[in-house]
Amino acid sequence: MRFDHAGVATDDAESLAFRYEDLFGCQIAHEEWFDGMRVLFMELENGYFELLEPREEGTISRYLEDHGAGLHHLAVETDDIEAALERAESAGVDLIDEEPRRGAWEHQVAFLHPGSTGGVLFEFVEH
Amino acid sequence: MRFDHAGVATDDAESLAFRYEDLFGCQIAHEEWFDGMRVLFMELENGYFELLEPREEGTISRYLEDHGAGLHHLAVETDDIEAALERAESAGVDLIDEEPRRGAWEHQVAFLHPGSTGGVLFEFVEH
Repeated sequence: MRFDHAGVATDDAESLAFRYEDLFGCQIAHEEWFDGMRVLFMELENGYFELLEPREEGTISRYLEDHGAGLHHLAVETDDIEAALERAESAGVDLIDEEPRRGAWEHQVAFLHPGSTGGVLFEFVEH
Repeated sequence: MRFDHAGVATDDAESLAFRYEDLFGCQIAHEEWFDGMRVLFMELENGYFELLEPREEGTISRYLEDHGAGLHHLAVETDDIEAALERAESAGVDLIDEEPRRGAWEHQVAFLHPGSTGGVLFEFVEH
């Protein structure tokens, strides 16, 4: 499997995008409104930053209130998300999403419970 | 620049390595004792997880006490770490390391202050 993106919770995606462009030379590859959030994908040579700026109440706005801005999740790309979920379940990992669902950028996504993965919120993503 | 690794603070690197092998099919590519920690690098197709298990008092043991296990930092690979640090400083980013220093796996590394990067602790790494 491959690293796909790091999801970053922020209250100002545009300013952060300028900063990451300065630091890492990355550019905005995709932008959309998704699930009450402004979502910017910035492209590195081998993956993305996904900047998540909530404009409505939701998971990320609550995350910002509780933890402040920062790393929210890590996404790993698979060619077969259903097989990946089956293997995860067989290994005793708690799934947040038992079935893949539509995520940003029209990708299929499914999250794993951080209690099963060393405290890291992981997302499987299939493009 | 390229995604290099996600650093994960853990109190049991070996168990977490087995779990990540189950989940992501990744294997241990490198193991060492570094700075009072057991450090395991697990290889994805395009990067690594760096599992950090402290065995002495230090930054990571304090992180575990304060935050619990989870994502600690994100490392971005550059071919020229000194130029990357200069650009970061010119952009007004606070540096934790003003000069590169030897990190795990004999890489040259330098950390940036999360207060300047949207709450994410970033590491530049040059192999």
